[in-house]
Amino acid sequence: MSLLIKGGRVITGADDYVADIHVADTTVTTIGASLNVTADKVVDATGCYVLPGGVDPHTHLAFDMAGTRTADDYESGTIAAAFGGTTTVVNFAQQRPGEHLRTAVERGVASAQGKAVIDYGQHIILTQLEDSTLHQLDELVGEGVTSIKMFLAYPGELMVDDATLFQVMERAGELGALCCVHAENGPVIDVLVRRALAAGRTNPSWHGRTRPELAEAEATHRAIAVAEMANAPVYFVHLSCAEALAEVTAARDRGRPVFAETCPHYLFLDSSVYDDESFDTAKYVLTPPLRDVRHQDALWRGLRANGLQVVSTDHCPFCLNGQKDLGAGDFSKIPNGGPGIEHRLQLLYAGVVAGRLPLQRMVEVFATTPARLFGLYPRKGTVAVGSDADLVVFDPSATTTINAATQHMAVDYSMYEGWRLAGAVRTVICGGAPVVENGVFVGTPGRGRFLRREAGSRP
Amino acid sequence: MSLLIKGGRVITGADDYVADIHVADTTVTTIGASLNVTADKVVDATGCYVLPGGVDPHTHLAFDMAGTRTADDYESGTIAAAFGGTTTVVNFAQQRPGEHLRTAVERGVASAQGKAVIDYGQHIILTQLEDSTLHQLDELVGEGVTSIKMFLAYPGELMVDDATLFQVMERAGELGALCCVHAENGPVIDVLVRRALAAGRTNPSWHGRTRPELAEAEATHRAIAVAEMANAPVYFVHLSCAEALAEVTAARDRGRPVFAETCPHYLFLDSSVYDDESFDTAKYVLTPPLRDVRHQDALWRGLRANGLQVVSTDHCPFCLNGQKDLGAGDFSKIPNGGPGIEHRLQLLYAGVVAGRLPLQRMVEVFATTPARLFGLYPRKGTVAVGSDADLVVFDPSATTTINAATQHMAVDYSMYEGWRLAGAVRTVICGGAPVVENGVFVGTPGRGRFLRREAGSRP
Amino acid sequence: MSLLIKGGRVITGADDYVADIHVADTTVTTIGASLNVTADKVVDATGCYVLPGGVDPHTHLAFDMAGTRTADDYESGTIAAAFGGTTTVVNFAQQRPGEHLRTAVERGVASAQGKAVIDYGQHIILTQLEDSTLHQLDELVGEGVTSIKMFLAYPGELMVDDATLFQVMERAGELGALCCVHAENGPVIDVLVRRALAAGRTNPSWHGRTRPELAEAEATHRAIAVAEMANAPVYFVHLSCAEALAEVTAARDRGRPVFAETCPHYLFLDSSVYDDESFDTAKYVLTPPLRDVRHQDALWRGLRANGLQVVSTDHCPFCLNGQKDLGAGDFSKIPNGGPGIEHRLQLLYAGVVAGRLPLQRMVEVFATTPARLFGLYPRKGTVAVGSDADLVVFDPSATTTINAATQHMAVDYSMYEGWRLAGAVRTVICGGAPVVENGVFVGTPGRGRFLRREAGSRP
Amino acid sequence: MSLLIKGGRVITGADDYVADIHVADTTVTTIGASLNVTADKVVDATGCYVLPGGVDPHTHLAFDMAGTRTADDYESGTIAAAFGGTTTVVNFAQQRPGEHLRTAVERGVASAQGKAVIDYGQHIILTQLEDSTLHQLDELVGEGVTSIKMFLAYPGELMVDDATLFQVMERAGELGALCCVHAENGPVIDVLVRRALAAGRTNPSWHGRTRPELAEAEATHRAIAVAEMANAPVYFVHLSCAEALAEVTAARDRGRPVFAETCPHYLFLDSSVYDDESFDTAKYVLTPPLRDVRHQDALWRGLRANGLQVVSTDHCPFCLNGQKDLGAGDFSKIPNGGPGIEHRLQLLYAGVVAGRLPLQRMVEVFATTPARLFGLYPRKGTVAVGSDADLVVFDPSATTTINAATQHMAVDYSMYEGWRLAGAVRTVICGGAPVVENGVFVGTPGRGRFLRREAGSRP
Repeated sequence: MSLLIKGGRVITGADDYVADIHVADTTVTTIGASLNVTADKVVDATGCYVLPGGVDPHTHLAFDMAGTRTADDYESGTIAAAFGGTTTVVNFAQQRPGEHLRTAVERGVASAQGKAVIDYGQHIILTQLEDSTLHQLDELVGEGVTSIKMFLAYPGELMVDDATLFQVMERAGELGALCCVHAENGPVIDVLVRRALAAGRTNPSWHGRTRPELAEAEATHRAIAVAEMANAPVYFVHLSCAEALAEVTAARDRGRPVFAETCPHYLFLDSSVYDDESFDTAKYVLTPPLRDVRHQDALWRGLRANGLQVVSTDHCPFCLNGQKDLGAGDFSKIPNGGPGIEHRLQLLYAGVVAGRLPLQRMVEVFATTPARLFGLYPRKGTVAVGSDADLVVFDPSATTTINAATQHMAVDYSMYEGWRLAGAVRTVICGGAPVVENGVFVGTPGRGRFLRREAGSRP
Repeated sequence: MSLLIKGGRVITGADDYVADIHVADTTVTTIGASLNVTADKVVDATGCYVLPGGVDPHTHLAFDMAGTRTADDYESGTIAAAFGGTTTVVNFAQQRPGEHLRTAVERGVASAQGKAVIDYGQHIILTQLEDSTLHQLDELVGEGVTSIKMFLAYPGELMVDDATLFQVMERAGELGALCCVHAENGPVIDVLVRRALAAGRTNPSWHGRTRPELAEAEATHRAIAVAEMANAPVYFVHLSCAEALAEVTAARDRGRPVFAETCPHYLFLDSSVYDDESFDTAKYVLTPPLRDVRHQDALWRGLRANGLQVVSTDHCPFCLNGQKDLGAGDFSKIPNGGPGIEHRLQLLYAGVVAGRLPLQRMVEVFATTPARLFGLYPRKGTVAVGSDADLVVFDPSATTTINAATQHMAVDYSMYEGWRLAGAVRTVICGGAPVVENGVFVGTPGRGRFLRREAGSRP
Repeated sequence: MSLLIKGGRVITGADDYVADIHVADTTVTTIGASLNVTADKVVDATGCYVLPGGVDPHTHLAFDMAGTRTADDYESGTIAAAFGGTTTVVNFAQQRPGEHLRTAVERGVASAQGKAVIDYGQHIILTQLEDSTLHQLDELVGEGVTSIKMFLAYPGELMVDDATLFQVMERAGELGALCCVHAENGPVIDVLVRRALAAGRTNPSWHGRTRPELAEAEATHRAIAVAEMANAPVYFVHLSCAEALAEVTAARDRGRPVFAETCPHYLFLDSSVYDDESFDTAKYVLTPPLRDVRHQDALWRGLRANGLQVVSTDHCPFCLNGQKDLGAGDFSKIPNGGPGIEHRLQLLYAGVVAGRLPLQRMVEVFATTPARLFGLYPRKGTVAVGSDADLVVFDPSATTTINAATQHMAVDYSMYEGWRLAGAVRTVICGGAPVVENGVFVGTPGRGRFLRREAGSRP
Repeated sequence: MSLLIKGGRVITGADDYVADIHVADTTVTTIGASLNVTADKVVDATGCYVLPGGVDPHTHLAFDMAGTRTADDYESGTIAAAFGGTTTVVNFAQQRPGEHLRTAVERGVASAQGKAVIDYGQHIILTQLEDSTLHQLDELVGEGVTSIKMFLAYPGELMVDDATLFQVMERAGELGALCCVHAENGPVIDVLVRRALAAGRTNPSWHGRTRPELAEAEATHRAIAVAEMANAPVYFVHLSCAEALAEVTAARDRGRPVFAETCPHYLFLDSSVYDDESFDTAKYVLTPPLRDVRHQDALWRGLRANGLQVVSTDHCPFCLNGQKDLGAGDFSKIPNGGPGIEHRLQLLYAGVVAGRLPLQRMVEVFATTPARLFGLYPRKGTVAVGSDADLVVFDPSATTTINAATQHMAVDYSMYEGWRLAGAVRTVICGGAPVVENGVFVGTPGRGRFLRREAGSRP
């Protein structure tokens, strides 16, 4: 099948030009001022941006947590992603106690079978280091799982100690793999949480009040130091505050290969939501919690000046009814996480409109850099001859209103309910095949491909 | 006329792919996997990189200084540039005492007539601020001169005081123009120079010993502070040392629009050349002087992590015989500057080979970012549909040896004499027309166009 | 004459103990738990602190400025100082155009003759550097004038350029003298002032709005850099803001001999006074101006942690009627400065009561460290055997109310009108002779001695 | 009994004067220029310094470790201390598994009975936090044990986790007690140690090669962050490197109550000792290990500028024969520590002679500040009326040579063997009683008193 996207304004991490794009089969083959070719299908992109499909390197689809499973499986989750211009996700597979790492990955891949409508990769979450585990890492990297996540929070559950962190980072560094770190000082936070509960402070607001910025900044600093001792790069997931960003920036200025993502909710929402002591606040029980509004400026500046390299969603949706309410009497039992996979581009574009980011930088943090860091580039993350035809036609003159009722994520609320945003995703193509066309889903569950990733390159 | 560049590996600031490029008249029209088009001329780029033509934003062609004129006029200078893969220069026009700024620019443009073989823009060097000067700036910006250079060195000659710096920055900021600053504390340096001379220390080595790093770092800090008070961006020319870089980086981390270039000689040469007390050392009398070798690592790190955004040449050539020897008995009378316009790409590529820079980052600092900052993008600085067909075919499998005897710059020495470097520039196209073809000059003096520049955009 | 101060709680920079102090002639001779000696006069200090007399290293008595002279001469000024527990001032002598430095000092000393009731030294303000001036510095240091002040503000009047700053610092460093710097970027400030006036913004509020913190921080950074190039120490007068303090602190952390004073008005007052657009605001026209209230915390922290070493008054009083009103229609013509010599101890003690400073640290910044830095220690600045008997009996259980009507400074307003503060100065002894006794002046104009100062020592 | 010390030059943290000192019973009663009193004993201190007796807040006398006990008990250890001018030690009592904290302290006090020749306090080392432990802290503070040490190194043995650190700091902060932290990232270090041993790298040199500076800096940063979250002060023991110092300094500059000691071996010795791969290097197996020589400058600068506040000895002596050789085939089994209690003053004075520290600053770090921080001031740490008569007569014109053969510590080597140093301790008085007189021991084992300490005050 061939496609011709005509007359759009193509935006990449470096470029901004008007051209036609010709796609043969799964791949971009020709880009030209006015292509004189025929195609099975022609998409008129006049007046629209043509962007590379987004790469969301932080999603939790079909993910078990806190006695429940995230509300989106690979089908609803990737459909929602596609509606938001994302054509690749890297989802988390989590090692269970005593489990071989590959088993966890296989379980993850299996859960995507017959469901994924866009392409996907897998990270592995390492929770236990046995003598044999480092060898398992070698195998996994060979099979295209080139990133390992570890937690410095949740002692007794997910947290690894610094010896594990160090050894895994070191091996990962030798293998060209990238360690992703959830940086919060879990032991201190757990004291604060237990104390709050003991004092009868059980409502969701207390989630936000028991996870101080300094606990994140400390763990960020520590992981940077451990990575330096291990001579390895490190990537911080869901960085949320100015203090943690300062640690990342200082390390980068010293020449260390240190990278970080933030998420749209840290750029647009703030901790004032926790002033509401009702259970409705469970919507915002995600980790790290939302921060004081002062942090937003710092994060936008970081995105602009390359202290932050990626915007992911940390999509980890739980319904308010039937899931979040597991913690009705105890905020520590609320499944942590929020829905976001669908609106990343829309929210980033609001940053462009507000003058926070240039368009090309938006594309970098949305697609190009995550593709690079996670070993998907140049197949993913750009609009270029030979790259996968993962393309988004985005109409900047339209508007989009966010509503839980109309969104495609299988969750009963939105953190942005009623927000009216500039621009609209018109058409989304993944691997040369339309998934969304003029706002209508036209994809095929199961057509999404598992991506064996290479070692990442450093942006 | 049409051109087809076939089979090259195209490198831009974001991309890296193999494709054919079709050029109609002056412009890139189509990029495709295997273009089935005819062309007046076909260039086989198989096995080669196809890069955007370089943008060198810091050259002194036909420039009067210290009672002499730089050895390269627009003809020899732009021919040498072309041989080095540079297709655009932004040259300096200097305001003489009492002179209207436009007069200086017109003199600059006139000196390019009938000579330039590649495209060129003009910066204005402001040396005096009268009541009317700020209005002259408005005019100049309207005519495509969107950058103003000021000196914090050379009191009594070129130096402006902080009041001038502040007022010009402020107006420039309002106009979207960019102020370029030569940052060295001239008054302190002049005390050191006079004292050295008074003590009979007259040989060229003393040039290097009388311009401390701290004098550069101080002036850099000061200009950043003045720019912040003026709410304006600032660009530092020829940044040479870690301490100045630290000032730039700290400002960028705070979100300030602060930018800087370094030059190849600071990346590859060091102050040990001043150990030679003979007059031969006059080759290295350039400003700032070469620094201790420890600074090289810091500068490369800065280029990699975006503390530095541009590599220019500060091409300011004087012959050892007949020019540099004006200062035979007094180092302060040696015309300051060195030749460099021809070897920027070659030296940067040595950094790529050494693992200092990724290829795409090389393209950014060589072409894309200077084009952006100085209002030439997207016409210049990238390989994209609709951009000027300024293209370089660079063969990474060849080697190049630098010799004064064979170089195209009209100067009697090289700072890199005998260096053998990986890669060779094969063919250079400017505005769709070959200037160098398989290492032979095929351009036409006078064909280079004066570029009316827009306000720059911030990378 | 002999004195016995009985039963007081003696506080020095290191100690805190109850003892009797015996004074013979001008000197402390014995300190003991319960001295069994006779004395010509016995002062009962039970329940009181006995402190070393304060050293105020920044006063402008009988100082010509802006076409007028400060309201206090050496008589009223030193009487007021004594009432505030200060027994030594170092006053400024200013070089007039073309004048030999010694002439300025002699004029200063002459103006104290027959007037000073406490001891005094002289700084020299250097405004012009001729070839012979550096030699004059040598002489001055030999005669006990071991500190030189220079201005980076007031171009065309007092400002020296960086070449002068550098050369004087270098010579001062060789001589063991200390350079005191007024750090504000004068050229930038003057543009802001002229622009405000041109826009009809003539009232005193605009004094505060035309001297940004960054202008102070920049000049502070610059003077530190110049001092480092000159291999000399530097002392900043009247440091007023967090940004300047950060420069000082960073330099100290690198091991540089960099010191700074702040003044009580920066610790207790803030820029909200400039919200009043009436001429009454002329009371607060002093330089640097009062800053946003956020700076106060930073300054107190700096005093506590030794980023700041001294609290001086910058006493520079002008009456609202007859002096300040010289600038009734033009804020730039208002004589800059405010009265403060009388209330330094009282205000510092308010900081002690508020938990900002320990008592011993209060004594350090009030007396010990200025004595050390300005070459008066151990004669001045402490309570110790062999030191001058400069002693203050301060009753912490009393209270003091500040009123222009009752103060001893010859000026018609107070910046702290009506403030009720803990503690009261009871008795003040200078050189063994009472100057204030139970709140009554008992001193003798002319008894104060000119102090030939040594090279300072670094605290 | 009464004493008269005549004609010495008395040095305190603030003062420097010549005087006689009269002591009645245990206390300084009178200080005067020329005291006309009789005394049971007269000490002629003409030409000598009279210093406050040193306070060494970090000693391990009779301390069980690694299956052995430190070579000095309270008798030999305090005799050696006295010969070095130290009249107070604060020794460590260590909680055994499951043990009530008070039991550990009682064991510590018991071991001093009949042995100590100078006064002593006890710190508690907390190794386990049970529910009841925080209450035990309250009791201990009431009984004069106002400092708690915790380890971030030695996982599985002494290390506490961050939850324990946080809770103990918080309670200590409320109680006015001070937490002392051994800051090294133990888990990372243990990986390095195990790996070295597995590779057959068993000799003592590897002790120095498996404990990187960054492991200390990281743990320092972490403890500062935890202390800030706990709103408590923190004190770092044996800080050894520039990177850790930078963390302390940055925290102090932000106004945090963060304090640190270093030890003479870090000021005078360096890691080049580990170049010797023989077992003799076991002499230098102490923790943190000796560092590269570049750190010495940073530490001296820190002492001077108040980034470091105390010099302790970390006296933890083990004989080379019979103790250190427990680790003959495995460096990790070598008891960690070195002898130092006897030579602290002598080595600090070498720093004074070298211009590194002023005399008064030497007294601060040797006596005054440790007394303050650990709740012993004003009883200890200064020479003042009412303070304990703990006095050292130090003759700066003599010299001292260090030899294992002649030292008073019960250990078979010295790290400073054969060093010839300026100055000599002549006479040492503790609590009014001579302990050393003209270099001869005249004290009485058991006369040293247990000191119930108050909450410390912050310098």
